[in-house]
Amino acid sequence: MNNTMIGTVNGDRLWARLMELGKIGEDEQGGVTRFSFTELERQAKEQVASYMSEAGMQVREDAVGNLIGTYVGTDPDAAVVISGSHIDTVLHGGKFDGALGVLAAIEAIQTMYENSIQPKHTIEVVAFTDEEGSRFGFGMIGSRALAGTLKQDNLTQRDEQGVTIAEAMEAAGYVPSQLASAARKSEEIKGYVELHIEQGRVLEQLNQPVGLVTGIAGPLWLQFTLNGQAGHAGATPMNMRRDPLEAATAIFDYIYRETRQFKHAVATVGKLRVLPGGVNVIPGEVQFSLDLRDIDEAQRNELEQRIRNFTDQVCKQQSIEYSIELLQRVPPAPSSPEIMAAIEEAARLNGMELPTLVSGAGHDGMQFHSLCPLGMIFVRSKDGISHNPQEYSSKEDCAAGTQVLYSTLLQLAAVERS
Amino acid sequence: MNNTMIGTVNGDRLWARLMELGKIGEDEQGGVTRFSFTELERQAKEQVASYMSEAGMQVREDAVGNLIGTYVGTDPDAAVVISGSHIDTVLHGGKFDGALGVLAAIEAIQTMYENSIQPKHTIEVVAFTDEEGSRFGFGMIGSRALAGTLKQDNLTQRDEQGVTIAEAMEAAGYVPSQLASAARKSEEIKGYVELHIEQGRVLEQLNQPVGLVTGIAGPLWLQFTLNGQAGHAGATPMNMRRDPLEAATAIFDYIYRETRQFKHAVATVGKLRVLPGGVNVIPGEVQFSLDLRDIDEAQRNELEQRIRNFTDQVCKQQSIEYSIELLQRVPPAPSSPEIMAAIEEAARLNGMELPTLVSGAGHDGMQFHSLCPLGMIFVRSKDGISHNPQEYSSKEDCAAGTQVLYSTLLQLAAVERS
Repeated sequence: MNNTMIGTVNGDRLWARLMELGKIGEDEQGGVTRFSFTELERQAKEQVASYMSEAGMQVREDAVGNLIGTYVGTDPDAAVVISGSHIDTVLHGGKFDGALGVLAAIEAIQTMYENSIQPKHTIEVVAFTDEEGSRFGFGMIGSRALAGTLKQDNLTQRDEQGVTIAEAMEAAGYVPSQLASAARKSEEIKGYVELHIEQGRVLEQLNQPVGLVTGIAGPLWLQFTLNGQAGHAGATPMNMRRDPLEAATAIFDYIYRETRQFKHAVATVGKLRVLPGGVNVIPGEVQFSLDLRDIDEAQRNELEQRIRNFTDQVCKQQSIEYSIELLQRVPPAPSSPEIMAAIEEAARLNGMELPTLVSGAGHDGMQFHSLCPLGMIFVRSKDGISHNPQEYSSKEDCAAGTQVLYSTLLQLAAVERS
Repeated sequence: MNNTMIGTVNGDRLWARLMELGKIGEDEQGGVTRFSFTELERQAKEQVASYMSEAGMQVREDAVGNLIGTYVGTDPDAAVVISGSHIDTVLHGGKFDGALGVLAAIEAIQTMYENSIQPKHTIEVVAFTDEEGSRFGFGMIGSRALAGTLKQDNLTQRDEQGVTIAEAMEAAGYVPSQLASAARKSEEIKGYVELHIEQGRVLEQLNQPVGLVTGIAGPLWLQFTLNGQAGHAGATPMNMRRDPLEAATAIFDYIYRETRQFKHAVATVGKLRVLPGGVNVIPGEVQFSLDLRDIDEAQRNELEQRIRNFTDQVCKQQSIEYSIELLQRVPPAPSSPEIMAAIEEAARLNGMELPTLVSGAGHDGMQFHSLCPLGMIFVRSKDGISHNPQEYSSKEDCAAGTQVLYSTLLQLAAVERS
């Protein structure tokens, strides 16, 4: 534990690498596009591999294209610590989403290397294949493969040109038929920690550069359809109406108020249609979506059930017929207490106290919820903007987050797994 | 007044005429389409003119095509009583909307004629030109002309073939340049009474065949636009959102609750758009329409102001920018006390007590709110259906309403205007 205060990451080097990597796939408007298994991604991987080598790591790729840098520990039998993120981007994205997490982990290792620190546990830095899903509409390919949950069936998804994931993988020199070889065993891994930009405005509003992520909230998507009775807006008195928008209003109101009773839950009604849609026609049907997230699945289930119960009650009261369709139910991935404790201690050792926040967006780490302990460090995003050329985190904030990651990795890699 | 109990209308004849007239423009599904200034409308007018003649009336048309049957009174200097409705239809409409009011008025006159009753005041039965507005998107042409509010400018509206109202009028043999000649003077008219199908479900739910209309509620149409801040559904906690749909929810809730505080008001949010409209995207903009109606303009103004005030308050609280655009503001036309009293007395003389109700839909009579006293009699609609081949009122209900109209006309035509 006495090693944790040795060394300070090099914020200038980190920033220079971020800018350098951000040139690959950059367009004239400053947007970055690096889709998986493309020539641009290949160039980016070669660049990252060279940084890994400079940091004292052995570099390899697995069967699905995960780029893995290994910093060997003193105990070859000890479980490894993994840190990483991704270097693919959305269409016309930014320089920070994913790239910062990979480069921060490399910077942390290079700081150990330059301070001649060899931890007990081997540390691996992974640039995961295709986190965004922008090319094939199916993301987190590399982290799913590592978690052992990627199946051959998943590789039949096609991009806009009709190329399947398997075909693209093979063309890039990987071996989709051997994807199982990329899977890791639970006992081999001590823990996973990822640094990422927040992509929200919580840290900015708290005026804090770095935050501790308490979990990745999985989305539950429901589609509601409410049917009442359409009619002439003038010819039906208020007390004779069965207006599904009135029932929907009560449900929206309940959703907004009840969700605030839960500490981490968020609820969004993002899609809404009112039919037939005439100014002077009482609606006959209302359709709307609900996106419900919490890092605690039991809490999310409880909120979901309350909303379903309320919907049933209101629709019965107002003689509205309704149906609720499940669109998707992704399990949340709460951060593990031991990883959160290590991050908090790391911050403390660097004189920081981290605010906690939830990750509403998905990240590679959520694929590991059954594989190993996991945790995340967030770095403040300017205006909460992401997936956009305007995406920005300051050099100082990036360095501060990376310093916390460095200390966290030192702690995790130097201490026996309990 | 002692004449008011003489005579009973012939419900069989009325029904036979309704069915006969309903054949003109009827399609295979039973829908009736008679647009203004068409050959089918011409046939219908000829049919109606023949009924007027049978009922002892002189028949003429004015410059805009209003078909007018005159039943001459004993005092040629006395103001005339007018009753009527329209015989044009919507696309694929029913046999009752409009037609019943014209045929009921003719039946009332024919009952006087057959009972040798000549009232003091001349009674005119009018089949007004183009009430529906289905052909040109501009309706109540005949009643506007009679009220003196139709202008040459209004006749430049075009149908789907690009034909203007003026062109169609001329092709049908009328004289648009002389539309002013169709206007009537206030002092020439004692009052206007119209029988119409309800087009709603109030009478049906009250189990009453006939109702007294307390006024025609003019529509006020507002278009609301609320702007907040779009964002990722996962990355923004509830307390950091500026979700315009949450503000809209509060406004809808207020509209539905507050409108019920007003006796006759109805409010409808019929059009609603949520942008950008992604399941996992917090809305950035919400647009919705509000259709507000009341027979009392002061009440409607009061409700409008309360909704505007509440919108302002909620949007300020929730940091939402908003604008409200006025789409149209049609003045309501409350029924005149003297016409309502005559209808009530007519009902009483026939052993009926009429429930009162509001007309939410517009009718020719609303054009006369500044011209003369006006009132309406509603006949029960099956299931509230209208503008549809399923539109139906029973023979008995049509006869009952027509009997009330008959007695009302007798009263109005026999007594000096106060």
